[in-house]
Amino acid sequence: MELYVNFEIPRELEEELGRHFRVVKGGDLSRVEAALVSKLTPEELAKMPRLRFIQVVTAGLDHLPWEHIPPHVAVAGNAGSNADAVVEFALGMLLAAFKRVFYYSEKMRRGDYGKDIPVPVLAGKKVAVLGLGEIGSRAARALAALGAEVWGFARTPRDGPWRFTDRLEEALRGAYAAVCALPLTKHTRGLVRYEHLALMREDAVFVNVGRAEVVDREGALRIVKERPRFVFASDVWWSRHDFSKDAEFFALPNVIATPWVAGGYGSEEVWRRMVEEAVRNLITWASGGRPRNVARREDYI
Amino acid sequence: MELYVNFEIPRELEEELGRHFRVVKGGDLSRVEAALVSKLTPEELAKMPRLRFIQVVTAGLDHLPWEHIPPHVAVAGNAGSNADAVVEFALGMLLAAFKRVFYYSEKMRRGDYGKDIPVPVLAGKKVAVLGLGEIGSRAARALAALGAEVWGFARTPRDGPWRFTDRLEEALRGAYAAVCALPLTKHTRGLVRYEHLALMREDAVFVNVGRAEVVDREGALRIVKERPRFVFASDVWWSRHDFSKDAEFFALPNVIATPWVAGGYGSEEVWRRMVEEAVRNLITWASGGRPRNVARREDYI
Repeated sequence: MELYVNFEIPRELEEELGRHFRVVKGGDLSRVEAALVSKLTPEELAKMPRLRFIQVVTAGLDHLPWEHIPPHVAVAGNAGSNADAVVEFALGMLLAAFKRVFYYSEKMRRGDYGKDIPVPVLAGKKVAVLGLGEIGSRAARALAALGAEVWGFARTPRDGPWRFTDRLEEALRGAYAAVCALPLTKHTRGLVRYEHLALMREDAVFVNVGRAEVVDREGALRIVKERPRFVFASDVWWSRHDFSKDAEFFALPNVIATPWVAGGYGSEEVWRRMVEEAVRNLITWASGGRPRNVARREDYI
Repeated sequence: MELYVNFEIPRELEEELGRHFRVVKGGDLSRVEAALVSKLTPEELAKMPRLRFIQVVTAGLDHLPWEHIPPHVAVAGNAGSNADAVVEFALGMLLAAFKRVFYYSEKMRRGDYGKDIPVPVLAGKKVAVLGLGEIGSRAARALAALGAEVWGFARTPRDGPWRFTDRLEEALRGAYAAVCALPLTKHTRGLVRYEHLALMREDAVFVNVGRAEVVDREGALRIVKERPRFVFASDVWWSRHDFSKDAEFFALPNVIATPWVAGGYGSEEVWRRMVEEAVRNLITWASGGRPRNVARREDYI
């Protein structure tokens, strides 16, 4: 069976794939039945009429050209492969913001040594976790272990050390902090709006390590401008990689911004693990097994 | 029995004390046998010839005038009463520094959107925790739960999800990060020197939420100047509250500084819990029980 791979993978993983597939990297793709990709263009898809399975190396699948993927082609993502990396990042953002470490360290840097705003305690406080996939559920467990009263929001109930709700309002009302780890689908696009953020406390911390588009941009901008003690900390931006388009956020003192690096940017270790997991899932499929993380097409189209 | 209290405590806690003691707040202290204090001066001590027990409301006891406390007077601290608050703060500092959140958010603030240094993963990495009291052991548990390989350093072995060592060199050698939560005693003053910090990785993160004086000031300054990727994040400073004397640290991009606020600065909730714990311990002593956190005099003199 022919497999199309459109990015560089470590030699030994390529050798492993070679035991199950004939790997092609370009040229004639007419006999390709499976693809291992990070991104995929409509042009590449058009060259693969026999394609039956797409294994994506990233966790998110929102960047695929879904309209061009025929309905009989199964698409598998790679959720969980870099969840550790993202959870650590989300907790760092949340705790440093909630404990006012960013606030005080920026003041100290400016030579202003005054203490003014209190440093609250997270233990016992309501914290919302939006999305209970690999990242959300691991973040929720870590926050519960620190003593927070965690509310988990998702479409489908999932058990864990949290109170489950499928109502966003219930998750955010009165919350001291929130972590957003929702995937971007047609159901979640623009889901978190001003009126939801406004249900949180005046000085709440909202952390986004999922996709920017899950949050309504104007709603986020309005809340940080209206509430100087509200902190919006995000690794993802609506402009995707052209960050200058979201510069009005970065100038605000109550915005903590990082340039889409939470997934282990530049970390060979994380990337290697992601490719390994993707290769393993692909081989499961090729061997007649049941691959993990197969997307629901109707979530995207 | 007469009890001397030298700071404001909530009314209902004072009423509780009133059921066990005759509370005095000044004037004639000659019949005082116990004291509940935050600080204590040699002058106050001189007025209390019948003093037998001092309950301090803070966890640290290094600020007491030990030379003026007679050897027969027992001194109890309040370790653990604000441990939650400090642990959350230490984790926020450590994770935000280790995941390069400070680095990238400062860059974004300046309009520099370039990605350069990688964002590493903590899971699987060696992290040292110095001091295994309430704060150290809780921080160590949280780090172990995130998958870090935790090395716990203390004088006396304590079991937990860490490798114990009583050798500082062993704890720090090759470590990616360290949290210092040692008490300041005559044994720990100046304990962590340049040669110890230099055993850590080039880009390691050292977090101090204990007492500044445990770390040698010149050693810390030398390491952050020599190693631009080393991060020194601290809530405590050698100048204590006159932060301007340590300003040369705050100007460095690889120093994260906060103004001694980790213990829940300004948080009524934390303060209330501290006073409650101190009152409970004092009543245990007055009722003939065994009070917690009794200091070893020889650690200070």
